[in-house]
Amino acid sequence: MTTWRLVLEYDGTDYGGWQRQPHVTTVQQVVEEALGELFGGEGIRVMASGRTDAGVHALAQVVSFRAQGVRTADQVQRGLSALLPPQVVCLAATVAEPDFHALSDARGKHYRYVLRGRGPRSPLRRNRCWTTGFALDAPAMRQALPAIVGTHDFTSFRAAGCSALDPVRTVLAAQLTAHGDEWHVDLHGRGFLRHMVRNLVGSLVEVGRGRRPPGWLGEVLALRDRRRAGRTAPPQGLFLVAVDYDARGD
Amino acid sequence: MTTWRLVLEYDGTDYGGWQRQPHVTTVQQVVEEALGELFGGEGIRVMASGRTDAGVHALAQVVSFRAQGVRTADQVQRGLSALLPPQVVCLAATVAEPDFHALSDARGKHYRYVLRGRGPRSPLRRNRCWTTGFALDAPAMRQALPAIVGTHDFTSFRAAGCSALDPVRTVLAAQLTAHGDEWHVDLHGRGFLRHMVRNLVGSLVEVGRGRRPPGWLGEVLALRDRRRAGRTAPPQGLFLVAVDYDARGD
Repeated sequence: MTTWRLVLEYDGTDYGGWQRQPHVTTVQQVVEEALGELFGGEGIRVMASGRTDAGVHALAQVVSFRAQGVRTADQVQRGLSALLPPQVVCLAATVAEPDFHALSDARGKHYRYVLRGRGPRSPLRRNRCWTTGFALDAPAMRQALPAIVGTHDFTSFRAAGCSALDPVRTVLAAQLTAHGDEWHVDLHGRGFLRHMVRNLVGSLVEVGRGRRPPGWLGEVLALRDRRRAGRTAPPQGLFLVAVDYDARGD
Repeated sequence: MTTWRLVLEYDGTDYGGWQRQPHVTTVQQVVEEALGELFGGEGIRVMASGRTDAGVHALAQVVSFRAQGVRTADQVQRGLSALLPPQVVCLAATVAEPDFHALSDARGKHYRYVLRGRGPRSPLRRNRCWTTGFALDAPAMRQALPAIVGTHDFTSFRAAGCSALDPVRTVLAAQLTAHGDEWHVDLHGRGFLRHMVRNLVGSLVEVGRGRRPPGWLGEVLALRDRRRAGRTAPPQGLFLVAVDYDARGD
């Protein structure tokens, strides 16, 4: 048995998210089907660093799996990419430590949310950003962000259906940067609750459009009440950018 | 009668190019249909600065048309955008001089071709670039490009079906710049023959991948023989970036 570590890029638009589920095609499903073909019918199950929602993209999702067949890293990276649909690719394949596990070994994650302000939607970037339609006050948003950095109970920003037992998470860094007519919200954390990034961004936009003062983001956090936060930002602006592992996991 | 000037962004992937034709949906068709709806059934015909091929994108295509109905610029920009499919948007609408004509008044065009070198394809940028699969030698490509700047007979780089009577065109500037793992080939010219940008890029890639020396691009140009040039680069990497008009056309 060989334990493999893959890095995947995918466009989440056409999929029902990462995780397998009935009646809808998911990224996990197409990856497992392609690996089954590559390894000659083995019923391979892959483990990702975490789920991504329907419509959410990944620049570098990390997954692990075990397989009997002998393949070179190049055979896995190229062969898998050739078998995957246009929406998914394998950027890298490496042999990992035998007990490497993409979910439980993950030490941190970097998400990016791409926002746009006023003005027309962009056909060439549709499904890649959220065009809010509002002029966004960047200094106000920058003033709001530090309140979420650190270790906090993020109950106010978790999804109704979030199954995590503990709502405490650690955000290591939160930044807002300008890129042409886009604003990138970069969040680096030890881990995130379900919909946490999208709920944080939804509330950040309430500040950005001037409906709430910068201090409101921290106030909502302190209330530990989901009903106090803004709407959930739509999925198509969200990208899983990178996953951190200890050196041995690389 | 009012003469209007529109700036359009579109994703060319799902369309048979700009120009109306039977049996395939084109960008011109969906724009004219939306304008017909906006102006209450007038049979409006629009004129673009030039055609774009199937799969080619526009960041700022300029079109003109005349209509009877009275509308504000905001009504045209927003109303048209609301009626257009997700692949097309109206970025700006302005009332033009009565005799403004997007095709015959165009004084120059700026095209960008987005290339990628070796490595896996990118799902998030599929239909937005050409992943050549070859390591590209940027200094060699930069050495080749100046040969096409100036006024030349571009017969070697025109499409077989190109209907232009005169194959002489003026290229004002040709640049290659790095953007992450992408190379942008920016061509600014007074005008371009059919497939001229894609044929130039196809030959430039022959130089970039080391199959031809840098001087070869200028040699092919001098031969005035289409059979000597490289393959036509695929359409999805090409963007019409801007169209120049004299100040009165703006």
